[in-house]
Amino acid sequence: MAEVVEISDPGDPRLADYRDLRDVELRKHLEAEHGLFLAEGAKVVRRAVEAGHDARSFLMAPRWLDGLADVLERSDGPCFVLSEEMIEQVTGFHVHRGALASLRRQQLPPVDDVLAGARSVLVLEDIVDHTNVGAIFRSGAALGFDAVLLAPRCADPLYRRSIKVGMGAVFSTPWTRLPDWYDALPELSRRGFTTVALTLSEDSVPIEEAVAGVGRLALVLGSEGHGLSPRWEASADRRAIIPMAAGIDSLNVAAATAVACYAAARR
Amino acid sequence: MAEVVEISDPGDPRLADYRDLRDVELRKHLEAEHGLFLAEGAKVVRRAVEAGHDARSFLMAPRWLDGLADVLERSDGPCFVLSEEMIEQVTGFHVHRGALASLRRQQLPPVDDVLAGARSVLVLEDIVDHTNVGAIFRSGAALGFDAVLLAPRCADPLYRRSIKVGMGAVFSTPWTRLPDWYDALPELSRRGFTTVALTLSEDSVPIEEAVAGVGRLALVLGSEGHGLSPRWEASADRRAIIPMAAGIDSLNVAAATAVACYAAARR
Repeated sequence: MAEVVEISDPGDPRLADYRDLRDVELRKHLEAEHGLFLAEGAKVVRRAVEAGHDARSFLMAPRWLDGLADVLERSDGPCFVLSEEMIEQVTGFHVHRGALASLRRQQLPPVDDVLAGARSVLVLEDIVDHTNVGAIFRSGAALGFDAVLLAPRCADPLYRRSIKVGMGAVFSTPWTRLPDWYDALPELSRRGFTTVALTLSEDSVPIEEAVAGVGRLALVLGSEGHGLSPRWEASADRRAIIPMAAGIDSLNVAAATAVACYAAARR
Repeated sequence: MAEVVEISDPGDPRLADYRDLRDVELRKHLEAEHGLFLAEGAKVVRRAVEAGHDARSFLMAPRWLDGLADVLERSDGPCFVLSEEMIEQVTGFHVHRGALASLRRQQLPPVDDVLAGARSVLVLEDIVDHTNVGAIFRSGAALGFDAVLLAPRCADPLYRRSIKVGMGAVFSTPWTRLPDWYDALPELSRRGFTTVALTLSEDSVPIEEAVAGVGRLALVLGSEGHGLSPRWEASADRRAIIPMAAGIDSLNVAAATAVACYAAARR
């Protein structure tokens, strides 16, 4: 059971995991080096722990203790309790639902485990924005996708912002990193998936047509800026577009993913 | 033609329109009082001016001058030129595509003008997040919606972040505020629109079914947190859901809108 530790000094070194949460670069280094990630908000903290992630510690204002009592009960790490003002001093911003947890990263599962039994899989190449990664996990989970695979350079789904935007879908959806970028899509084809890349290519067909009759589907999404790499675009089994009004920039990747998942769910 | 004015002091009072862009509350007051809004990024600045918005002034680093020369040519306000470091000091953050413009707000058009000829309209009740408002404008424009109506308390589509996320769709899509909240939906019905509210209600039907055969469609979206008001939910002609996987939180409003627009575009 988590020991409740009241803290009155925002400089207390035991709060190191929670410093300067808005400094993305600092956080990336700190979290990688210490093998941790942060969950923000009472609901997300609960989901992280219920999904089996070990808490190194919790940090919260007193009023969140009761609602999370059962979560603290089953955890070993200490629960640091501070006023909301002090939490803001430590983290560098106002934590809207004043509970945080620092959790241990687990080793990512092998691709085989993630794909076992999956019928619909999202494959993200180089999505760079944590908000988009979170939104994609959330849409995929809501619209019936079973798993997510990430190219080596895709942004971290366990980054605080990804988790928050995804409403914790990253805890309920099996996911892992692809060990190999170059042959990732042919490898999925060999495993029996039809890889459908969302991309503005000359031979792209409307998404509904591209997924029609497909059994095991891998829906492939590229980066926000320049889209898919030429290698991934060319090595996908099919290329698909979402039909759009003339003269309009493409949908953003999160919106496009939601639409494509919706179309795929109805195949 | 915009006069190019080189500025070497970030405290120069002529830069008042561009101060502290990250301070949402400050900006809301300043922009309302002075009847201005900010466009960020060379592409968005161009679209704002091309859409007929008068520039009070521009602010940019030297390297953006050439690409925007024709835009400056047709504008009257001065163009303040500063180094990127100084722009960061003024605005309070790193402006990624270092061009900004401060533009005059125009009087919003009457509802009649916005609805003239429109077949598919988005109606936003109390969306509070500027990112969501921008994403909704962008998805609507991409997926064939002709106009947007906003309830009195919906967040500002001309806020910098809304414009940026919307990729300037707010300039190409006719929109206005609804003068009356209470009877807004019955009023749309009287004008010949079928109002379809996206909401988890007992009598909600799948979105595709709800829009089938509808001529003039008003797709109605509620707030991120608690959804539609009971009044709007009850006064819509139809209530619709996006079919989702069991046990999952709803899609976020931007993703749900994209899916609903896609389904509606195919009615």
